[in-house]
Amino acid sequence: MRTGRVEAFSDGVFAIAITLLVLDLHVPASDALTERLGSALWAEWPTYAAYIVSFFVIGVIWINHHTVMDAIARVDKSLLVLNLGLLLTVVTIPFTTSLFAEYLREGSEAKLAAAIYSAVMVVHAVLWTVFWHHAAHHPELLSADVDPDRARRSVGRFSFGVPIYAVAVALSFVNPYVVLALHLFLALLYLRGMLDVGQEANA
Amino acid sequence: MRTGRVEAFSDGVFAIAITLLVLDLHVPASDALTERLGSALWAEWPTYAAYIVSFFVIGVIWINHHTVMDAIARVDKSLLVLNLGLLLTVVTIPFTTSLFAEYLREGSEAKLAAAIYSAVMVVHAVLWTVFWHHAAHHPELLSADVDPDRARRSVGRFSFGVPIYAVAVALSFVNPYVVLALHLFLALLYLRGMLDVGQEANA
Amino acid sequence: MRTGRVEAFSDGVFAIAITLLVLDLHVPASDALTERLGSALWAEWPTYAAYIVSFFVIGVIWINHHTVMDAIARVDKSLLVLNLGLLLTVVTIPFTTSLFAEYLREGSEAKLAAAIYSAVMVVHAVLWTVFWHHAAHHPELLSADVDPDRARRSVGRFSFGVPIYAVAVALSFVNPYVVLALHLFLALLYLRGMLDVGQEANA
Amino acid sequence: MRTGRVEAFSDGVFAIAITLLVLDLHVPASDALTERLGSALWAEWPTYAAYIVSFFVIGVIWINHHTVMDAIARVDKSLLVLNLGLLLTVVTIPFTTSLFAEYLREGSEAKLAAAIYSAVMVVHAVLWTVFWHHAAHHPELLSADVDPDRARRSVGRFSFGVPIYAVAVALSFVNPYVVLALHLFLALLYLRGMLDVGQEANA
Repeated sequence: MRTGRVEAFSDGVFAIAITLLVLDLHVPASDALTERLGSALWAEWPTYAAYIVSFFVIGVIWINHHTVMDAIARVDKSLLVLNLGLLLTVVTIPFTTSLFAEYLREGSEAKLAAAIYSAVMVVHAVLWTVFWHHAAHHPELLSADVDPDRARRSVGRFSFGVPIYAVAVALSFVNPYVVLALHLFLALLYLRGMLDVGQEANA
Repeated sequence: MRTGRVEAFSDGVFAIAITLLVLDLHVPASDALTERLGSALWAEWPTYAAYIVSFFVIGVIWINHHTVMDAIARVDKSLLVLNLGLLLTVVTIPFTTSLFAEYLREGSEAKLAAAIYSAVMVVHAVLWTVFWHHAAHHPELLSADVDPDRARRSVGRFSFGVPIYAVAVALSFVNPYVVLALHLFLALLYLRGMLDVGQEANA
Repeated sequence: MRTGRVEAFSDGVFAIAITLLVLDLHVPASDALTERLGSALWAEWPTYAAYIVSFFVIGVIWINHHTVMDAIARVDKSLLVLNLGLLLTVVTIPFTTSLFAEYLREGSEAKLAAAIYSAVMVVHAVLWTVFWHHAAHHPELLSADVDPDRARRSVGRFSFGVPIYAVAVALSFVNPYVVLALHLFLALLYLRGMLDVGQEANA
Repeated sequence: MRTGRVEAFSDGVFAIAITLLVLDLHVPASDALTERLGSALWAEWPTYAAYIVSFFVIGVIWINHHTVMDAIARVDKSLLVLNLGLLLTVVTIPFTTSLFAEYLREGSEAKLAAAIYSAVMVVHAVLWTVFWHHAAHHPELLSADVDPDRARRSVGRFSFGVPIYAVAVALSFVNPYVVLALHLFLALLYLRGMLDVGQEANA
């Protein structure tokens, strides 16, 4: 299958998942409000923080998806199934975001919620590594302007998200607030790193 | 109407239906939690299992849709209406998935829920058979590189999902857990089978 | 603006609106079930009927939108705003569908629900008439292969949905069940009629 | 990255955000209805008004997004991140719309709700200004038919939404109803103004 179709479908899933995040922003019912609206909304700040972080996390995944797909000319059955796995983790993010926001101030439960959010990102990073490893070792799937040797050598650096997100899982049990900020930082870092890998693979 | 437009619209529907599955993953309300968060989430495992199965079911339907559309050059009114029927069954999957997950551990009710999930797949498979039968018997709708004789002969094998999903309906009244696993297995099997039919029809 | 972009955006809205219909299919909570699951689901038949009818109503609107856009080469500000108005009525259909289903068996309230469902279709048909009237009287907006004289003469027949849906509003106060069936019938009729107008305008 | 991909993804987000607005239209539960259905629906008029206003607000943002992207040939990392920020404000609109509608008749709380709705538009307009400023000062990102000097000079007029939406924030504390009407008026005005800027930049 040509990558154009896979990209179009994946873009649709990314666009929907990123937009569904808004369903987590709840309007307090006016007839059940026991305080001022401003206070009620302010109390929801973990929801807004998690919303913004996850928006950029999914947005950067979308950009990275294009970067990788640019280096690939055709997808075989393995890449199709791996891509579905990648999309599965992305579609799960609105759920883990909601979980993170709901429990951010709930003491020990916040640690589990942060760890689950980070664990989905570990799975996501592992699937990317397997995806690129498979593509790099099947030169017939790569774009004509990609050097198979460089692609194979880039698999190691390509997988740097796996240990980083694993650290985020561990850090979840120390400080969930730091983990939330870390995910925004990692998204922007990942954007930079992946674009560089992409440029190098295309060089 | 050209198939490109039908594919783009159908892809949109597939992407949205597959993403809406996440709305079934519920975050336990923190102020109503009577147990540890870990226990509360673990108790929801049928939801996660059904979520993953249906994600691959819809994902494989998307892939198969492209395989079939590749063999078709134009769609007439009948194919347009049949395609809407196919999309209707796909859009229904988030509902039957939610039903399956909610009742998986509810004894006899689980059997009905599994049977309904499987029955929608029977209807889906029947519509595919009618769709391909219509296309195969209207050579003017087929792509130039498709042999009408081979296309007509492939209708039989094309319809192998109908009896298989009918067996899933019957099996629902024996063991709903097995039926859930069966649907994941069938999705991956269908992927293989349909791609082969597609390749042969295009050969 | 080129019509390709307007079509792509409109297709996205159609695909989402048609898929959001599934959110109306409710799974009875297993811990609040006071009857057999089969009975509880059967009691929801108006929801399923309205779901299927609205699925084909939106599906046919999508097809007709393409038929009309094929006859148009460029859209000006008026057509852009009119198209947004058309999309507004389409996006409203999941709401009127839910209203229709919730009140179908509620005696006199069912009449109002049916009338509201039909009234949105009247507005939709009026906007189509204004849309085509504007395009037909601005030949610079029409595709090169469309005869402006024929286009202008087709405005009358193009507007046949307005009186028909107005009759549906009136009929709502007689029998809401008949109105529900009528909308499915009209969708399929509209499909045929619009495609013919489209072919003639393109002839 | 080519703008075509950014536009396709952004269009998807716009289409989903505009369609999710319908989730705010609530059907009164038939078994909890204490008045006539007509009265219950009529009492929801702020919801319908906010729904229509936000539909056109997002619709016009979509049109303006295309106008600006037409003047841009390539997006760098800064524009990618700024575009994600723009999409973030758009995806937030269904939430602020729901908030506005829920509190429109709630006295002093309505003022806060209107101010929040308007404040998101201020952020949106600021991001547009930064976006266009960045593009206008990086001629290598502009389309070949865009004059960099004119583009730079247009930044001032391009940013006219910032003070206007700031006035809407201030006006929110005077009369929320007027602010709701103002947003519909500004959307249509913005449509006209941006299209003119776009034409001039392309001239």
